[in-house]
Amino acid sequence: MVLSEKPGNGGARPGGRTARVRTSVLEAAGDALAERGMDGLDLADVARRAGVGRTTVYRRWGSVPALVADLLQDMAEQSQPRAETGSLIEDLTANAHLVRETLAHPRQGPLFKAIIAAATCDERTARALHRFYEVRVREWAPCVERAVERDELPEGTDAHEVVRAVSAPLYYRLLASGGALDEETAERSARAAVAAARAGVYVR
Amino acid sequence: MVLSEKPGNGGARPGGRTARVRTSVLEAAGDALAERGMDGLDLADVARRAGVGRTTVYRRWGSVPALVADLLQDMAEQSQPRAETGSLIEDLTANAHLVRETLAHPRQGPLFKAIIAAATCDERTARALHRFYEVRVREWAPCVERAVERDELPEGTDAHEVVRAVSAPLYYRLLASGGALDEETAERSARAAVAAARAGVYVR
Repeated sequence: MVLSEKPGNGGARPGGRTARVRTSVLEAAGDALAERGMDGLDLADVARRAGVGRTTVYRRWGSVPALVADLLQDMAEQSQPRAETGSLIEDLTANAHLVRETLAHPRQGPLFKAIIAAATCDERTARALHRFYEVRVREWAPCVERAVERDELPEGTDAHEVVRAVSAPLYYRLLASGGALDEETAERSARAAVAAARAGVYVR
Repeated sequence: MVLSEKPGNGGARPGGRTARVRTSVLEAAGDALAERGMDGLDLADVARRAGVGRTTVYRRWGSVPALVADLLQDMAEQSQPRAETGSLIEDLTANAHLVRETLAHPRQGPLFKAIIAAATCDERTARALHRFYEVRVREWAPCVERAVERDELPEGTDAHEVVRAVSAPLYYRLLASGGALDEETAERSARAAVAAARAGVYVR
């Protein structure tokens, strides 16, 4: 659940003017959200930051929730592919570290907080957020499915639920209990998910 | 992490005019937050809902974050005491059900969402929220400590972290991934925490 890089920095994304405008606008929207939260997000300001005409932004996105939904879709598309180390604990630890790095990142952490806060009171943003996690969970689920095939985990283990279990303690710290988002917490999240999965807790 | 009852309903709380005013104001603040979120919280409106003079509310609480911090302290004071069944899995399942019922409750769920959203961008609210969870975790930690004494769990198990592990998957569903806050999810959260604790994941 991490952006590979801030879009627009590497030049590695597919081109075309429409794609470049989208990249600039979504980067500007993410910056604004990270800096000032959802209340500070304004389409005209995003257009100015992106160096794009207001009309373009209004015509293409039309509203703040639509812009945030597109940002989340882009974040899902740009996020890291799963690890494939051949070891369940190593794969899930890699995932836990990615989640931790994202949530502890000076731009990405506030960005996620702002979007999650908005999703608590806006249904469209909530649906876009849920889709983001679905994409991420689907990307990482094969790590768990391979472990079932290798007889590391019981038959019938719900791979999606195991992947969610890795993230949950990190989000709980970020949003509810507080506490350090440190590497130890990330590693413990992965170990807890594996121990519970081995014990058959996630068998459907 | 549940209110035993909406304050003011049972008449079981200690009396005195000052205490009654506090009860009415905090109930009104909780209702307003649950209905309209943090942006809809206004001290004058809370005073009107509570049937209390504005001046009293301004003098005693002075600001929205101060009022929310006091509401959280009251919620911690009023919340359910721990179960003591003599079985770790039963105690933690009771805790998971309480958390689930709170988060799925038509008033308490939106109330928690509103406070958590506010905490993402207000440091004082975040600190008050963290204290709320500290109180709840401290209340339930002895269930885990007793299990260590009974040799159900390894020596050195971090009881607080086990209690947090029970809540984390429920909050993750509420705030991030979406998905049903059903009884099965609550029971699985408790079983996962116990399985990971037995495997020594939470040994400091």
